[in-house]
Amino acid sequence: MKSHTRYLTFQTRRRRELVRITDEVAGFCQESGIQEGMLLVSAMHITAAVVVNDDEPGLHADIEEWVQRLAPGPSADGRVAGPDYRHHATGEDNGDAHLKSLLLGHQVVVPITRGRLDLGPWQQIFYFECDGRRPKRVILKAIGI
Amino acid sequence: MKSHTRYLTFQTRRRRELVRITDEVAGFCQESGIQEGMLLVSAMHITAAVVVNDDEPGLHADIEEWVQRLAPGPSADGRVAGPDYRHHATGEDNGDAHLKSLLLGHQVVVPITRGRLDLGPWQQIFYFECDGRRPKRVILKAIGI
Amino acid sequence: MKSHTRYLTFQTRRRRELVRITDEVAGFCQESGIQEGMLLVSAMHITAAVVVNDDEPGLHADIEEWVQRLAPGPSADGRVAGPDYRHHATGEDNGDAHLKSLLLGHQVVVPITRGRLDLGPWQQIFYFECDGRRPKRVILKAIGI
Repeated sequence: MKSHTRYLTFQTRRRRELVRITDEVAGFCQESGIQEGMLLVSAMHITAAVVVNDDEPGLHADIEEWVQRLAPGPSADGRVAGPDYRHHATGEDNGDAHLKSLLLGHQVVVPITRGRLDLGPWQQIFYFECDGRRPKRVILKAIGI
Repeated sequence: MKSHTRYLTFQTRRRRELVRITDEVAGFCQESGIQEGMLLVSAMHITAAVVVNDDEPGLHADIEEWVQRLAPGPSADGRVAGPDYRHHATGEDNGDAHLKSLLLGHQVVVPITRGRLDLGPWQQIFYFECDGRRPKRVILKAIGI
Repeated sequence: MKSHTRYLTFQTRRRRELVRITDEVAGFCQESGIQEGMLLVSAMHITAAVVVNDDEPGLHADIEEWVQRLAPGPSADGRVAGPDYRHHATGEDNGDAHLKSLLLGHQVVVPITRGRLDLGPWQQIFYFECDGRRPKRVILKAIGI
């Protein structure tokens, strides 16, 4: 069995941002030399998510609007404040980002087949930053043969 | 380490449908010959989900009503149109299905113990089609010893 | 490849309760002797969730309020009844707990690096009981080298 690990760091300019990372994950997969296995893509922070979906700008706007409806927070650019949360008593202003992370999930597992990410034709991997403008990490870990 | 892979294809008659796949996944597990490991069940489309829950018709009706409340779309039979989404500017009408996939998640990992799916007594695996009536795939991949 | 399995049992005093289990999972990781791999933490019931987030009481109160808004049910102490669900025709009163489990997800995969859980500085693992006051199980399964 082989194992391979790498950490990606993101510092988004906006508070909330969807970053396509399929190419980085595919490069890591190739580098691992693993032919058959599983690849974990997992945010190391509690105010970010990792999802697999379509790379279509209209859909991305729908997702932004949707997460704001289900877990309201500041605007994506951070200019308009969001509702208050009990978590803010600690001095934070990112209660919504914790809920968004729980809503979307902080990780995905990508299957590796014949040395490549075994994704469907429209599946792209995204890091969804929910409280950015500072360095945040994602771990990539692959195991297999 | 062993690895085993199979693809399931679904073509549901209704737009939205919950399909129990525990038996297919258990058969695949047995076929893999793996005694201890992990089995990934992952939709290869971005408008479908994979979940573990109870096989109870009342609950399934609750789930249908619930996903429609949180991510509104056309009726399950496709006869009543849903709200508009920005994604629909591409010609699609399945914006809600993308959100439902994000809400429920597109994959689960099932533990394998002593050659069998290690599920609790009420846990059943479901493919949740959110935009059906065309062939859609799910990947099964098991790794272990 | 090595594999290691353990079952945790919880019996919460309240109907709904967030239980930090990072230490149990870390102890299990050490016991496994695995240096590089993946560790699955998965509820074996369909009315519970497993999540990774912050160990901050204000946030926990926010999460409780949030899951009640998105999937309404009885109060956390069980004294105030929740809305009716079709699932209740079976004699159960925990329809909300099934939806909460689907909302939050019933499992996480924790990466193992150099023999330890590879979590970010604020990441803690929680078992989220949504229908407690009876014994409920979580499976821990690690595979790796």
